[in-house]
Amino acid sequence: MDAHEKGFFTEENSVEVVTSRNATATDQRLKRVMEVVTRKLHEAVKELEPTQEEWMEAILFLTRTGHTCNEWRQEFILLSDVLGVSMLVDAINNRKPSGASESTVLGPFHVADAPELPMGANICLDQKGEDMVIGGHILGTDGRPIANAVIDVWQANDEGFYDVQQKGIQPDFNLRGVFRTGADGRYWFRAVKPKYYPIPDDGPVGKLLGALGRHPYRPAHLHYIIKAHGFETLTTHIFDPDDPYIHSDAVFGVKESLLAKFQQVEDPVRANELGFLGKFWQVEHDFVLARPEE
Amino acid sequence: MDAHEKGFFTEENSVEVVTSRNATATDQRLKRVMEVVTRKLHEAVKELEPTQEEWMEAILFLTRTGHTCNEWRQEFILLSDVLGVSMLVDAINNRKPSGASESTVLGPFHVADAPELPMGANICLDQKGEDMVIGGHILGTDGRPIANAVIDVWQANDEGFYDVQQKGIQPDFNLRGVFRTGADGRYWFRAVKPKYYPIPDDGPVGKLLGALGRHPYRPAHLHYIIKAHGFETLTTHIFDPDDPYIHSDAVFGVKESLLAKFQQVEDPVRANELGFLGKFWQVEHDFVLARPEE
Repeated sequence: MDAHEKGFFTEENSVEVVTSRNATATDQRLKRVMEVVTRKLHEAVKELEPTQEEWMEAILFLTRTGHTCNEWRQEFILLSDVLGVSMLVDAINNRKPSGASESTVLGPFHVADAPELPMGANICLDQKGEDMVIGGHILGTDGRPIANAVIDVWQANDEGFYDVQQKGIQPDFNLRGVFRTGADGRYWFRAVKPKYYPIPDDGPVGKLLGALGRHPYRPAHLHYIIKAHGFETLTTHIFDPDDPYIHSDAVFGVKESLLAKFQQVEDPVRANELGFLGKFWQVEHDFVLARPEE
Repeated sequence: MDAHEKGFFTEENSVEVVTSRNATATDQRLKRVMEVVTRKLHEAVKELEPTQEEWMEAILFLTRTGHTCNEWRQEFILLSDVLGVSMLVDAINNRKPSGASESTVLGPFHVADAPELPMGANICLDQKGEDMVIGGHILGTDGRPIANAVIDVWQANDEGFYDVQQKGIQPDFNLRGVFRTGADGRYWFRAVKPKYYPIPDDGPVGKLLGALGRHPYRPAHLHYIIKAHGFETLTTHIFDPDDPYIHSDAVFGVKESLLAKFQQVEDPVRANELGFLGKFWQVEHDFVLARPEE
């Protein structure tokens, strides 16, 4: 037997020695995952040649990241987000046919039981922020309107906070709502102009961003989950293209097709109709859903 | 501007978009580390195409691993160990000139303040296990003995436990000792034959090993740190080549050159000299230290 047959580890055969131990694994997918993870980890180590001290720094970084996770904080998801891994997994799982709206990350602020509201309702419950009216159509890739599409929308307020981050300050379910389209596929509702906000940056991931010279901000956006019978569910955002962070979203969620137009409107008659007091923002944005077979 | 210039993320340009954010990092080594880590992570994701559920499983595995770490348990080091990463980092940092003894992992059971003992002392303080006498020389690569070499040795007992794992059961500093060579470079001490033992396998890493069909055992070994003025410090083990797990060390620590000969001796006169009652084990093993300039 040579060193390889004996299973002894060397720099040269490190990947084969480690992955060959999984020969009898019954879960073929897990075996494959660990084969790739081991190979890529070893490739990274061989390319970087970390010192023992650097290796220990990495161990302690992962440990601090784990210790920062609790019931309401998921620092490993944040790490995945800032390294573009979350967006990559999203992209791979949501390759859309031509013409369909693109997806982006769900984020941690969705709430399952937001109230269903009549079309046109104002989801801003505390009258804070700059008024905004948002509308558009839910369409198939054939351009036909989709009836009974369910639009679940949520957004941060004008200071960059979601209701769940400011319990007792914002009303429950502030800036959240569920709407259902009629035969024309049209949706519309009233809200406030959202603002950019930082991801939680007081933990190990925030410190890493700081050490890399990166800011923690996400450009202003509204979140959507759009469901309709016979169509693939779409989880996405629309973004304000004039946001200062539009080209440097800390979690890489921006796509060209997700830029909406935020138009400022000065029209007292229309404002009055909408229950607004002065200038307001207007966004028109259609969403196109793909069918599973497309 | 095309999508790339705008910094918008796509499957194709994911690595470049993420790593270009670190352009202004002042710590060049950290920048390089994150460039390689990001690239290898994205390569792994692109090769595996994980589902959202698999991604979440990975997040939760890392979270559980972090939550298992505490003052006396380091589950991320264990993860690094079972994936061969610890041994790879050790190998990269301890490339030895021809003829020098090879290193292996330190492990978590070293204690800094073990007592210095007179040459020949018995480090077994509780008379449990099969008697063993171990000796050899500390040499330079030129074959000359090294005087004043300090040999820090520690081992598990005949049931596979270190003293620090059985406080109150084993005496403090059981099976540990520090010896110093004379002009002849010779060392020797008495001990007991060590036994294979499992790495801690009641946490996420143990569960992963189980799911991969891997056992958690390390073959029987003694640990050494050998220091001498003018030479590189050597952190290593010697292993029992007849151990049932010698070809499948859970942490990949075995190297061909670290196999010692554990000979059973039946010699009443010699046993009597050593203070042993019957048959005993004998190990002769030389260690060769490299100079930094070699």
